[in-house]
Amino acid sequence: MRVLVTGGAGFIGSHLCDRLLERGDQVWCVDNFRLGRRRNIAHLLGRSNFQFSELDVLDKPGLNALFADAGFEAVFHMAANSDIAAGGADIRLDLELNQLTSVTVLEAMLAHGVKRLFFASTSAIFGETDQVLREDFAPLQPISFYGASKLAAEAYISVFAHTFGGRAVVLRFPNVVGERATHGVIYDFLRKLEADRSKLEVLGDGKQSKPYLYVSDMIDAILVAWDKSEAYFAVYHAAGIGSTTVREIAEIVVAAAGSADTRIVFTGGDRGWPGDVPQFRYDTSRLQALGWQPQRGSTDAVRYAVERILGNGF
Amino acid sequence: MRVLVTGGAGFIGSHLCDRLLERGDQVWCVDNFRLGRRRNIAHLLGRSNFQFSELDVLDKPGLNALFADAGFEAVFHMAANSDIAAGGADIRLDLELNQLTSVTVLEAMLAHGVKRLFFASTSAIFGETDQVLREDFAPLQPISFYGASKLAAEAYISVFAHTFGGRAVVLRFPNVVGERATHGVIYDFLRKLEADRSKLEVLGDGKQSKPYLYVSDMIDAILVAWDKSEAYFAVYHAAGIGSTTVREIAEIVVAAAGSADTRIVFTGGDRGWPGDVPQFRYDTSRLQALGWQPQRGSTDAVRYAVERILGNGF
Repeated sequence: MRVLVTGGAGFIGSHLCDRLLERGDQVWCVDNFRLGRRRNIAHLLGRSNFQFSELDVLDKPGLNALFADAGFEAVFHMAANSDIAAGGADIRLDLELNQLTSVTVLEAMLAHGVKRLFFASTSAIFGETDQVLREDFAPLQPISFYGASKLAAEAYISVFAHTFGGRAVVLRFPNVVGERATHGVIYDFLRKLEADRSKLEVLGDGKQSKPYLYVSDMIDAILVAWDKSEAYFAVYHAAGIGSTTVREIAEIVVAAAGSADTRIVFTGGDRGWPGDVPQFRYDTSRLQALGWQPQRGSTDAVRYAVERILGNGF
Repeated sequence: MRVLVTGGAGFIGSHLCDRLLERGDQVWCVDNFRLGRRRNIAHLLGRSNFQFSELDVLDKPGLNALFADAGFEAVFHMAANSDIAAGGADIRLDLELNQLTSVTVLEAMLAHGVKRLFFASTSAIFGETDQVLREDFAPLQPISFYGASKLAAEAYISVFAHTFGGRAVVLRFPNVVGERATHGVIYDFLRKLEADRSKLEVLGDGKQSKPYLYVSDMIDAILVAWDKSEAYFAVYHAAGIGSTTVREIAEIVVAAAGSADTRIVFTGGDRGWPGDVPQFRYDTSRLQALGWQPQRGSTDAVRYAVERILGNGF
């Protein structure tokens, strides 16, 4: 299959490129290096079935030229602002990087007759709830512009699939950890310890609890959903098994990269930033019914990610 | 109360201005006359508690200057592309006129500390389903860019209310009929008969069936929801009682404005255009529990609207 991966030099995008190439797909990767990094794809450059273009997906003429040239059969739209906290300060940031990139991709797909789309969505579309989240849970009341922009993108993709003949797989991601991450709690903690090993400041009270998934399990989820789903608009949830508190993550990071004297200091409050959802629980049975099974539980995933990051660099 | 009504020279917006003024509010109306009409507010110009500015809500500096000047306590955001079929041809049309206008309004409200928002939403956010639609129905899979853009706007308003201290009332409108309408099935039929009384061409098979609400009942719904809701993010459905098929509407219009020889011709197919939802049913019990009760059933509403339009001009 001849595929475009947007945001392909990003954290999850670059792991996805690896795996698509492994299975024999022709991969065209684009990234604007806003969050993505050249080093994430350096090992792929020069391979005969891999091509890279430095391109901002919002550059509509540039994207259209690429579509005209490449003859894609499918698009994995991974480009996004993955830094949820950053979007709190500017209503337009996630709007542009998550939603308008999606609209631009849909426009190009419609213009060039490309039918198959994978979209990386998020639990943040649901807002705050203590319910176990099935794919059709309601009400959807996001509390971050990140969540709102991803919900908006899902809505446009729904129209693409229901009215314009597209086929789309929407997979709502949990917190994913692993090497090449460009943001997130492990990354933040390691950076803080790098600057000052005497203490680790943790935003909130440390009790926020989420299921973490190791990146290779996430790529498995993407490919199972992609290969197995038969609906023209299919929505799935993927999540780690169990959950891990921020306090546990801090302790794991300090054990691996701190010193015996590192103190963990909590700023207090039930969340890290306005719009942070303190906890969520996904029902992943729909994706598991297709055969997906994560290899690592949440806390194991965190521990392994810390090990891989320290072994391989950020 | 000192209120801004965006799209205040439009169909429902101008009726809302009338009623807000009647009850003693100070109304500042803005409209860009893309769909709104000067004649809809001509009778209000010169009133001491009414001010009008010709302004496109997407004009961010213009909107901010107005907010700085006027000291609004609340915003009724009615400005929108109300021509759903038109949005099928251009993915950006509803995006800009429905969603980005909403984002621009939210930005101005956040910048100027205005907390209270009314938002005119739509059943089109749900897509196509034969279920009775409660406010928290899922899944939400819009089939028109109109529906997608309104769902996106709701998501941004959810963030405004949940994370940024705003208070919002979202009312999902049904098909509304009455004088001053700028689009819609009655309007289309009357225009067609004006051009050619020998026949009335009806898009689809005429079996599409929707609940129609007369505009004064819609304004009642807006004001009941606005006055009575206590949640900081409240969502309601309003709908006419019963429903009316397109065939019935055609017959009512022909009886009122056609001749004995007017033939009704159906183009066939189960919907008027791609993205048209052939039928939907709202559960309106939440709004009725606040005291709202429409005065006219669906077919009566259509009949009365035709009479008022013919009596008062389009």
